[in-house]
Amino acid sequence: MPTERPTIADVAERAGVSKGLVSFALNDRPGVAPQTRERILAAARELGWQPSLRARALSVNRAFALGLVITRDPEIITGDPFYPSFIAGVERELAPAGQALVLSVVPDEEAELAAYRKLVADRRVDGIFITDLRHDDARIALAEELGVPAVTLGRPEGPSPFPAVSMDDRAGIEAAVDHLVGLGHRSIAHVAGPARMLHGSRRRKAFEDAMARAGLRATMVVETDFRAADGARATRDLLARHEDPTAIVYANDPMAIAGLGFAQRAGLRVPEHLSITGFDGSDIAEHIYPALSTVATDAVSWGAVAARVLLQEIAGENPGDTDLPPARFVPRESTGRRPEPPTRRPRT
Amino acid sequence: MPTERPTIADVAERAGVSKGLVSFALNDRPGVAPQTRERILAAARELGWQPSLRARALSVNRAFALGLVITRDPEIITGDPFYPSFIAGVERELAPAGQALVLSVVPDEEAELAAYRKLVADRRVDGIFITDLRHDDARIALAEELGVPAVTLGRPEGPSPFPAVSMDDRAGIEAAVDHLVGLGHRSIAHVAGPARMLHGSRRRKAFEDAMARAGLRATMVVETDFRAADGARATRDLLARHEDPTAIVYANDPMAIAGLGFAQRAGLRVPEHLSITGFDGSDIAEHIYPALSTVATDAVSWGAVAARVLLQEIAGENPGDTDLPPARFVPRESTGRRPEPPTRRPRT
Repeated sequence: MPTERPTIADVAERAGVSKGLVSFALNDRPGVAPQTRERILAAARELGWQPSLRARALSVNRAFALGLVITRDPEIITGDPFYPSFIAGVERELAPAGQALVLSVVPDEEAELAAYRKLVADRRVDGIFITDLRHDDARIALAEELGVPAVTLGRPEGPSPFPAVSMDDRAGIEAAVDHLVGLGHRSIAHVAGPARMLHGSRRRKAFEDAMARAGLRATMVVETDFRAADGARATRDLLARHEDPTAIVYANDPMAIAGLGFAQRAGLRVPEHLSITGFDGSDIAEHIYPALSTVATDAVSWGAVAARVLLQEIAGENPGDTDLPPARFVPRESTGRRPEPPTRRPRT
Repeated sequence: MPTERPTIADVAERAGVSKGLVSFALNDRPGVAPQTRERILAAARELGWQPSLRARALSVNRAFALGLVITRDPEIITGDPFYPSFIAGVERELAPAGQALVLSVVPDEEAELAAYRKLVADRRVDGIFITDLRHDDARIALAEELGVPAVTLGRPEGPSPFPAVSMDDRAGIEAAVDHLVGLGHRSIAHVAGPARMLHGSRRRKAFEDAMARAGLRATMVVETDFRAADGARATRDLLARHEDPTAIVYANDPMAIAGLGFAQRAGLRVPEHLSITGFDGSDIAEHIYPALSTVATDAVSWGAVAARVLLQEIAGENPGDTDLPPARFVPRESTGRRPEPPTRRPRT
């Protein structure tokens, strides 16, 4: 079904020379008389001959493609604003470089390792992105074993031979806590991401540190799986406590938006009764009411820089680690002054 | 940097035979004595030799990959729940079939055509998905010209040699209008998608038809580009009219959520003053307050079926068109009885 592209044989026939000579001429190798070379190149031009990427890939042992494996439940992916932006950034670098992105979406960590193994074994990619780093992340050792260039988003815990492209998310969480403390809040809760993920536990640690610096105890922390439904559930649990929070710092925007929805449905006004902050600066967070105060991360730039670093590494350069500008807190309408006690707010 | 995999030459050396004989034995061709074949296969096993997908791809002229080009602004992609779910569905079919997904994200239609051309010219893919069909869609003719198998999401306007996998979105819009008419609404507006996209104009037509059937005039229609910010802007324009709507049917969820935010910020209560419906059933729509009445489309199944059909086509089968179960309306909290006139609601 594919249209037939002109082959070396076609060029040879037209130029009246052997296939071997055509190959020498087209690959700029010595041993072809200048006039003959000219005749061969003219024949190639006339026929519209183009080098085959696939044949070239085989000869130089390159796929001219990078691999991304995303390990998430389809349900979580849908609500997560990070990956679509990250991929848009990656593509911005790859297209001009003639590179392609091979994407896998897998349900769990076992399937993830198998997916990386297969991408490399099938030589579909020259390098891989390692995102959503975890404690004792098996992918670092796997990439070393497979001998495939890799770039990690953030620095892994253990030693890693791969360049890291990092964005400090601690700064954003600390700024969110400082903002709330400045508004008089003392009873601040955190709806955390999964502890097995480095960014989940790092944001939690940043929350605890910022609370400690303000002389406050970080006793109200609920771990979740980053799903919107988890955000609603965690909010319900927190508000059902005896000493309930006047502010909640969420580890992502979908959970914060779901938490806002839960609080409003329970009759609380945000921010008069409860202040709320998100993380990751999704587009929709700006348009809900009240508009969500959140931590903006530039996922598009993150993708572009990670792709650039990975291409440098594949080219044999030594790009080293990169630190992107830190995530920054964007105050909007969902954070306000701590309610005066007694809050008299409706019990949920 | 890649680890060296055993080659045919390594197997030949270990088995003490020629490379040609190894190739014959490994490809199950006749002319190799049974004992020799056994010795060669044993040597291949011991060395962990595996057939190279890339060499196999070259020999059978197959990439064992499918191509998806998404033409959207990064800003719109981030808020759009469709593609992440669609891709998750595609991957569910591809992984077990040993196929990969090559993804391109491009900013405009010119870059889109170039991206498809390049994927095919580089022989990176054996088939392509054509999504977000437009009027006079140049991609049908392009795919024919390139001779690449394709599958379209929905049926294009003109003749197409490619199988279509369709989901009737008219039914969902009609059910939304019927639901609102049943609640007493007469003044119903539509915030439409881009008219150049078939699904944008089809949803608008479905809206107009359903209104006509109810004996109502569809005079309040605002065209948008599917962005959340457009949803807020369109809502502002509609509510600023003299005869403003008591209900708005939005062509996607992000615009509906932004419209809800705008209305709430303007002091309107939803659904007491204004009823709102969305489209595409994003995860977050269920968790906002009031929960969004919307039209649920199963994007995961759509992706899985489209991938299956495309693989069948590549295998030389003739899969024909597929109609998935139609999109269905899911009433939640954002739709209610038409307010009694005079509505006395705050002017925006």
